[in-house]
Amino acid sequence: MKNIAIVGATGAVGLEMLAVLKRRHFPVGNLRLFASERSTWQRLEFAGAQIQVEALTEGSFMGVDIALFSAGAEVSKSFVPAAVSAGCVVVDNSSAFRMDKRVPLVIPEINGEDVRFHKGVIANPNCTTAIMLMALYPLHRAFGVRCIFASSYQAVSGTGTKGMEELELQLREHHYAGIPRASVYPHQIALNVLPHVDAFLASGYTREEMKMEGESRKIMNHPHFRASMTCVRVPVLRAHSIAVSALFKRSISVVAAREVLAQAPGLDIVDDPQNNQYPLPIYQAGQDNCAVGRLRVDNVWGNRGLSFWVSGDQLLKGAALNAIQIAELLL
Amino acid sequence: MKNIAIVGATGAVGLEMLAVLKRRHFPVGNLRLFASERSTWQRLEFAGAQIQVEALTEGSFMGVDIALFSAGAEVSKSFVPAAVSAGCVVVDNSSAFRMDKRVPLVIPEINGEDVRFHKGVIANPNCTTAIMLMALYPLHRAFGVRCIFASSYQAVSGTGTKGMEELELQLREHHYAGIPRASVYPHQIALNVLPHVDAFLASGYTREEMKMEGESRKIMNHPHFRASMTCVRVPVLRAHSIAVSALFKRSISVVAAREVLAQAPGLDIVDDPQNNQYPLPIYQAGQDNCAVGRLRVDNVWGNRGLSFWVSGDQLLKGAALNAIQIAELLL
Repeated sequence: MKNIAIVGATGAVGLEMLAVLKRRHFPVGNLRLFASERSTWQRLEFAGAQIQVEALTEGSFMGVDIALFSAGAEVSKSFVPAAVSAGCVVVDNSSAFRMDKRVPLVIPEINGEDVRFHKGVIANPNCTTAIMLMALYPLHRAFGVRCIFASSYQAVSGTGTKGMEELELQLREHHYAGIPRASVYPHQIALNVLPHVDAFLASGYTREEMKMEGESRKIMNHPHFRASMTCVRVPVLRAHSIAVSALFKRSISVVAAREVLAQAPGLDIVDDPQNNQYPLPIYQAGQDNCAVGRLRVDNVWGNRGLSFWVSGDQLLKGAALNAIQIAELLL
Repeated sequence: MKNIAIVGATGAVGLEMLAVLKRRHFPVGNLRLFASERSTWQRLEFAGAQIQVEALTEGSFMGVDIALFSAGAEVSKSFVPAAVSAGCVVVDNSSAFRMDKRVPLVIPEINGEDVRFHKGVIANPNCTTAIMLMALYPLHRAFGVRCIFASSYQAVSGTGTKGMEELELQLREHHYAGIPRASVYPHQIALNVLPHVDAFLASGYTREEMKMEGESRKIMNHPHFRASMTCVRVPVLRAHSIAVSALFKRSISVVAAREVLAQAPGLDIVDDPQNNQYPLPIYQAGQDNCAVGRLRVDNVWGNRGLSFWVSGDQLLKGAALNAIQIAELLL
């Protein structure tokens, strides 16, 4: 049994972490739930017990074996050192330590063995990166990826509960012929798409777009991998999709790609377009596995290129599920 | 004055054609409005007159100078020959004749001079292609495009009024906690994205995706242009967006691209991401001009590549406006 702490327990990812711990029968000993002051009135149910949400302090981690952080990069930067000092192993869902060379960045199906190099912190990847790599990495192992061009269709859950609430609220306002107000996003997200996820850099790319390259390099252990990305927020509740065109070192065919992907853990092939079967975010919501489809020989690169479409639950494989899978590797 | 017929007058594009003729003070003589039998009870207003919608027959085109067709490829294939025989010039918004070598495929800002080669029929391009080329073609002229990787975010208006109605209906059903039913699209479009626009080909690409390559080649008069496309329907009402990464023969920079695009007719530059300014489909709805932004040196191709985001009203530049602009060239 492990004593577990969830930091950010009342958020969209924190609530999924609770559900995943339960569903996967994780051997939870003592469970402590932390959130910001304004959520400490809440109690959350786990395995029949009502657990009071607590405010986080530097002393919160005494006796905790594994701390699951999902409260943003600032909270992680402030409190992860205290958790490590207290002897916890931290699985951090924020971007704070992902590119730190001393911190393993792990998708268990891809580089689970990297967990053993940890020095107290293991980082959970960016959600879009994780979902994309569930399909790209098996292809990389078989055919050697050089670069990709990809565009994302990212759900509002990536912004947390407040993103989901804003979309629902704007849809209601649209329904009642009001003018939807934007507060979480800089513009209306209902009935719109925003080519803006995370902050813009001087290069014109966003941080999110560059995470897709940087984190993919680290997770695939492939320092020369290149990615040209456009990350776009779409009015979908909780599953991300990515359209990918990948160039490989070795020649590839749809048949060969499908054989490789059929063996890939945590991935379903949904690829019968003539019968309208392809991965869709509404059907991926709530699913542990990601799905890949629309496999086709790339129209520009020919038999060295493959285009495909991958979709997965942002709160599960993109966040809570992957974090708990990392915690399982620590058992 | 020209006698005008609109075929498909009660559809989403037909209604926009009426509005655009009026707004641009097109010298309309006699105006006849055609639609399928089930719409012939309707009267539509134009310049103060109520015009009765008529059923289309082979004899409908007597005395008509310019016939604007927007009723689908099957109607065009059946009735365009009769219209041409009756002495009309047809501007056809369907895909029926676009790739016919005898038929000019025209975006007035790009290849308006091709109109003069017409033999009775001028084709109006695919909506997504037209919107993308408004930004890509000026860059091609200046820097010589070789190929693109692009993904679209296409509004439901591309499916006509019934697409817009289905999205609104599904949003209401979602609001009332019902289960949205899909009939126009194979799956729910509200709170979802569908990597499926037009029919699938044996290659795994859709017709829409291949139109983007084939029509772009014809309009840009660039037979070697290659496009790797993923076309995706999104729950947006009436403006399409496209994320494009383009490889050029000559080196390109953001500054040089911006200079070229600033001169391009029918195109606005909306590109101040630090202040959250980039083209957005909700703001492009109802606008004649398309908008381009998120200009950046491509992360894979370096100074031979540019990535950008273009958005435009599907019913206007993607359909009705472009068709009326072609008709204006005939005056």
